[in-house]
Amino acid sequence: MTLVTAQMSVSLDGCYAGPMDPGPVPTGPEGWMNSHEALGFMRITRWVIDAMAWRERLGFAGGERNVNSDVVQETFESAGAYVMGRRMFDGGEVPWGDDPPFHAPVFVVTHRARQTLPREGGTSFTFVTDGVESAIERARIAAGGKDVAIAGGGSLLRQALEAGLLDQLELHIAPVVLGEGMRLLDPAGLGLAPGEAIELTPTRVIQTPEVTHVRYTVNGRSRLVSDDRGRVETSEER
Amino acid sequence: MTLVTAQMSVSLDGCYAGPMDPGPVPTGPEGWMNSHEALGFMRITRWVIDAMAWRERLGFAGGERNVNSDVVQETFESAGAYVMGRRMFDGGEVPWGDDPPFHAPVFVVTHRARQTLPREGGTSFTFVTDGVESAIERARIAAGGKDVAIAGGGSLLRQALEAGLLDQLELHIAPVVLGEGMRLLDPAGLGLAPGEAIELTPTRVIQTPEVTHVRYTVNGRSRLVSDDRGRVETSEER
Repeated sequence: MTLVTAQMSVSLDGCYAGPMDPGPVPTGPEGWMNSHEALGFMRITRWVIDAMAWRERLGFAGGERNVNSDVVQETFESAGAYVMGRRMFDGGEVPWGDDPPFHAPVFVVTHRARQTLPREGGTSFTFVTDGVESAIERARIAAGGKDVAIAGGGSLLRQALEAGLLDQLELHIAPVVLGEGMRLLDPAGLGLAPGEAIELTPTRVIQTPEVTHVRYTVNGRSRLVSDDRGRVETSEER
Repeated sequence: MTLVTAQMSVSLDGCYAGPMDPGPVPTGPEGWMNSHEALGFMRITRWVIDAMAWRERLGFAGGERNVNSDVVQETFESAGAYVMGRRMFDGGEVPWGDDPPFHAPVFVVTHRARQTLPREGGTSFTFVTDGVESAIERARIAAGGKDVAIAGGGSLLRQALEAGLLDQLELHIAPVVLGEGMRLLDPAGLGLAPGEAIELTPTRVIQTPEVTHVRYTVNGRSRLVSDDRGRVETSEER
């Protein structure tokens, strides 16, 4: 069965990158690489960099075949198609080059129509202008029975979670507290009313020294309820 | 060796309670129990309520002797003394009654001097007016070789973390997204400069369907550094 999945590396305080710097955005990849946003992002995703499965996709030598690498490999292999936000695509289009690491159709949610961009290795970028739900439906057809993965960024992930479109969420929790940063589960993007919450069920936890992988099934929205803290069943009443 | 420890139940988005309601604080325990702050708190700490080890301390019958109960019991047993914030003490003083669940000396960080309050079962409340570091030192002497536990609330935990006084942090991550709420690792209370972070090492993860227990050793502050994303070792260079 095709699931709509998302996975993201976050800090212990729930950030997927450092804070956006005030003032003009640094130009060029080198500028961004030294921004506070990037410094946080690099720390949080450091566990990926040594993973053999990631290095292979990027065409880099070296790397370790370990549990973290297995998690990366599984993430790549389970996805038959991707849905991606426009900002993430804009940041990746040039650095990913002719052979982006996805090796599957990618549907980019954007307001700007553009012709589909074929790439090597099975990757293509199709631009979808009628919203995230439509992009997920197109990805579902393209996924050939595999999962549809929300590739990011955080804003698109929140949209999918808010709209009840996400079946599974995996967080890779890096053991670092960033303080200020871009919060994955930023309340401003979740659209929860007061007293409302999103319930999940943890289905798998993998522990490594570098990162804790926690996978959840998303159950959906529910109302928070008051409880009596167990006071009903006092010793006297039994 | 005496460690300074803290443990806290948090939502997947890092909140330990719902948002503080605007306007006047609801009066009386029933008023608070129906506040948005309490609704979030109750959901996040629900896993504790059925734990036999918690119910025993509170004098309630029933409960389950399961992994979550073992975690509660271990938390109680490892603490030889507690340090507590003033707001938490104010909220608990009446409901905890004559036999509070701590069964050990508790040092309350406050600006208001007050005589030590002896209670039954080994609990006492001593009021410390010269700050969290002093309270921890007094608790360390009282702990008799066991750990000093920061009992809460979130503000005191952040103070201890910011001041580098915390050796171990355990988070009990409840599988729920609250959106708005009181954030344990609120950047406003952590005092981190841009490009600075607090590094930790995960030492134990316990998975249950109700909650994920993750224990960390706190390594301390460090500067975030840029990295080359592994680009140095390309296939061509090997």
